[in-house]
Formats: sequence, C-alpha cells, structure tokens
Amino acid sequence: MRKPIGIFDSGIGGLTVVKQLIHFLPNEDLLYFGDTARIPYGTKSEKLIKQYALEDAAFLDQFGIKLLIVACNSASAVAVDLLQMTLDIPVTGVIFPGVEAALNESKLKRIGIVGTSATINSNAYNKRIFEFDPSIKVFSQSCPLLVPLVEEGWLDDEITYLTLKKYLIPLIDVNIDTIILGCTHFPVIREAIQTVVGNNITLIDSGKEAAKLVQKILTDLKIASQEESRGTFKFFVSDDPGKFTEIGERFLGQPVISAQRVDFDTFLIEQGPKLYKPLNLYD
Amino acid sequence: MRKPIGIFDSGIGGLTVVKQLIHFLPNEDLLYFGDTARIPYGTKSEKLIKQYALEDAAFLDQFGIKLLIVACNSASAVAVDLLQMTLDIPVTGVIFPGVEAALNESKLKRIGIVGTSATINSNAYNKRIFEFDPSIKVFSQSCPLLVPLVEEGWLDDEITYLTLKKYLIPLIDVNIDTIILGCTHFPVIREAIQTVVGNNITLIDSGKEAAKLVQKILTDLKIASQEESRGTFKFFVSDDPGKFTEIGERFLGQPVISAQRVDFDTFLIEQGPKLYKPLNLYD
Repeated sequence: MRKPIGIFDSGIGGLTVVKQLIHFLPNEDLLYFGDTARIPYGTKSEKLIKQYALEDAAFLDQFGIKLLIVACNSASAVAVDLLQMTLDIPVTGVIFPGVEAALNESKLKRIGIVGTSATINSNAYNKRIFEFDPSIKVFSQSCPLLVPLVEEGWLDDEITYLTLKKYLIPLIDVNIDTIILGCTHFPVIREAIQTVVGNNITLIDSGKEAAKLVQKILTDLKIASQEESRGTFKFFVSDDPGKFTEIGERFLGQPVISAQRVDFDTFLIEQGPKLYKPLNLYD
Repeated sequence: MRKPIGIFDSGIGGLTVVKQLIHFLPNEDLLYFGDTARIPYGTKSEKLIKQYALEDAAFLDQFGIKLLIVACNSASAVAVDLLQMTLDIPVTGVIFPGVEAALNESKLKRIGIVGTSATINSNAYNKRIFEFDPSIKVFSQSCPLLVPLVEEGWLDDEITYLTLKKYLIPLIDVNIDTIILGCTHFPVIREAIQTVVGNNITLIDSGKEAAKLVQKILTDLKIASQEESRGTFKFFVSDDPGKFTEIGERFLGQPVISAQRVDFDTFLIEQGPKLYKPLNLYD
C-alpha cells in the first residue's frame, strides 16, 4: 500500500526514530511533523499534551497516512490510547515497544531508565513495566543535561563523558543489566553511553524498537509498501526550520535536505471544532 | 509608602533579582510571581510573550504593588514598554539597567553578552547597546548548558568549569573587558565565571543593576518604604511549587520558606476580557 507513515514529535528528537524507520522500512514514504513552536511537551499538563497530540495527529492525518508513530515520550505516555480511539489507522508510541524489549533483555530483572526530568517524573516507563511484571526492579535517573549537550553537538567531548559518568554510575552501582534510553535525543550519544556503562549492560533504544514494531504491524495488516524503490521523506515544523535543518543530520544520520514551516495556527483555527471534540471524553 | 514591589519571571531565575532587592532595599515588601507552568518564555512568539507579561503583571497588580520589575530577560526584551503604557505604576526590566552599567564599565568599548539561545538570538541586548552607542563592539555567546547546570546544582563542579571555558574563552580571545550576564540563572555561578575569565573582565549582573535602578526610582518618586523593620516577601508560582522551593535557596541566597501555587487559569478566565484589550494596539 503506497501511503505514507506519519511521525510526530515535540521537536527534533523524533528524527532518531525516523532514522530507524529508514533502516528497517527503506521503501516506506515518511511524513514527519516536529512541533518546534510548542516544545517542550513534557512540562505541560496531561490535558494539554493530549490536545497537542490530537492536533499533531490531525495535521498528519490530512495527508492520508496509513499508520501513526508518536515519537515524543511525553505524548506517548498519555495520548496513544486516545489517538487510537480517535483515528482509523494503527497508532504506536515509543514507550510500549521500549518496555517490551527491556523485559525481554533483562536477565537480572533489574532495569534502569534514563530520560528528561519530565519523562522520569511522569513514571510512564515504570508504570508500563509494572503492568507487565510487578516483580521487576526499576531504577530511574533523570538526565536534564543530555538534551542540551546533544543539541550543542558535544558528542565525543570530555564534558559529555564526565556528565554521563555522573548520571550513570549510580545506575551501574545498583546492578542493573539493561537501560532504556527514554528520550529520543539519547541515541545520538549511544556510543558514549555504552562506553561509560560497559558492554555488560544492554541499551534499549525505544525508537528502534518502535520501528521494529511498525514493521511487524505493516506485515500483519498487509499494508507494507510493495515498491522496490526507496521511500521518500518530508519534514514539517511549526516554527522556523533553521535549527531543525542545521542540526537534524546528527539525529537522522543523513542531511535534512529541507524542512517546511507550516502555518499551524491557521490549520488549528480551521480544524479546531473537529479536533477538540474527542477531548470531552476526558473532561 | 507601604505597598509591595512586584516581580515576575517565567520561573525561578528571577529569585536572583529578589536577592539583590533584599540587599539594596531591605525594608521593602516583595511579591514574586514565577510562571512555572508556562516556562520557558524565550522560545515563544513575541506576541505570546507580551500576552503572558500582561497576565503576569495583572496578577501582581491586584495586590496593589507600587512598582513592577520584569525579571525575565525574554519579557524584558519585548514587553516593558507595553506594560508601562498599560499600568499606572513604574515598570522596569533587566536589560536596560544591565546595558547602562556595561556601557559605564567598558573602557575598551568591547562588551560580551552571555545568555540562553533565545535571549542571544533575540539580539535584545545588542539592540539596546547600539541605541546608546553604535560604536560599541558587541560579542554574543549563547550558553544553553548553563541553566540546566545551575538547576542541577553543579555549581563548583569540574563539568561546570569545563563548560564555562568552552563558552567563555572565545569571548576572552576577542579582547572584551566587560561581560553582561544576560540570564537570571547565571549570577548563581558568578564566582565560577569570574574564575574562568579572570579578574580583568568585569561581570555585569543585570538583576543587581535593576535593583539599584529601583532604589533610585523609589527615592526619586518618594515612594520608598519608611518602615524600619525588614520587609516581607511572598512567592507565587503557577505550577507545583516543589522544585521552586527545593532549589530556590541557590538563587535567593536564603531558604524559600514557602511558595504558593495559584490557580492561574481561573484568574485568567476572570480577568481575560480586561487583559487582552491592550494587545490589540499591536495587532
């Protein structure tokens, strides 16, 4: 089926998920929306994140996408079920696939989670893990410096290694054997993280696991692309695309040839009444 | 005159301005509002920052403040004139006093500015400096890691010194003699900054200069407190006060005994029609 896959994120981090999609599903067309005007989502209320997620999804849905990926951890935590209820296409976030992979990997049943303060404080990963298996021991570490370090591009820098040691040695000390990278920025410094924690600890890239899950869904539902040529990709952002284009290669693994700013305010005014209806379910 | 001074900021950083107010004006009562639910302001549009500033000011104005300080750099850059037109009391930001002090200090007429990416990209300080004296050479450096470093409390840490060197050595190399700390978080690591740049460079704390300006305004207008007892202070925030209270001492120089969450949404609904009117002037 030649319809695009839609991916949205609060900003640029979701490009690491796109990178994995290109790897696992090279023939699929991809449409990405980065809500750079309203970043960050993690500090917003649950209700507002749900509203944003509905709006972002509606924006992508107008292009006739066949599947939606919520690449943003904050939106994945609260809005995937709502989106699945609202849209007629399959929807997946990044938390469920990340958790499933970690549970499969961890022999000691001791899992570490790293993410932004917002993700860690939301307990989104812990809750999911306990739903599967309440006997798992979970150790969380918020790492607020890693996002700005990645965005500065200090990927192989002494400052980054020292910061990673400060955050990760407490996790190593409690004898975990698996760490979930609970932030889409973190795969960019995956090698540095692996160096610091050593090879006995398995790192789980939630975006990579999401891409593998999408591959399975497309096959199961028989909606995978049958094209032999490489898929196309298109990037939309809600604010000036300058920084997105400039540092995007770090996340995508290839240059972001062009990103288009969309007039999201106008889109919302036109779509508003339709969009806000489902929210009443939760009021 | 026994009326409080109002101070607002997008979050916690403005407490460094309160610290200076307590130092210079120990007998004044202070009312602080930190808009922690809507932080950061710097990434928002100019129109939205103006709207937030009007709302924050209206919140403080209902307590009968005699003067308003815009402690947030982003709001200082775009909203001080609008607030001055809207309110019946004197209003000051942090940019104008910081710029004035830097112009007085710099012998070489070569000034460095450090701040968040939003403040640096807005060119707010440069524009003000060029209004005063177009012959000044200005060198800007955005320092996105410093806010999270301060909030993590890594004040005297190797990571902080290495990061400061990375940001500040390029400024030293272009022979500036004065640096404006264009972010209210930065005075918290003032000593580390001074150590890195050496004693030949003068650091300007915009918040301190704002406090000195307020002292002058109160005297000139004959509205300074005549009380001999120490003033009181009260802190309001628009989100959960947990982190504000917890790390506030680092900014204030004394414990934040209590911060009260206000139901800002309800306040806005009640005040809304009154508040949004002045904005039409700018549409």
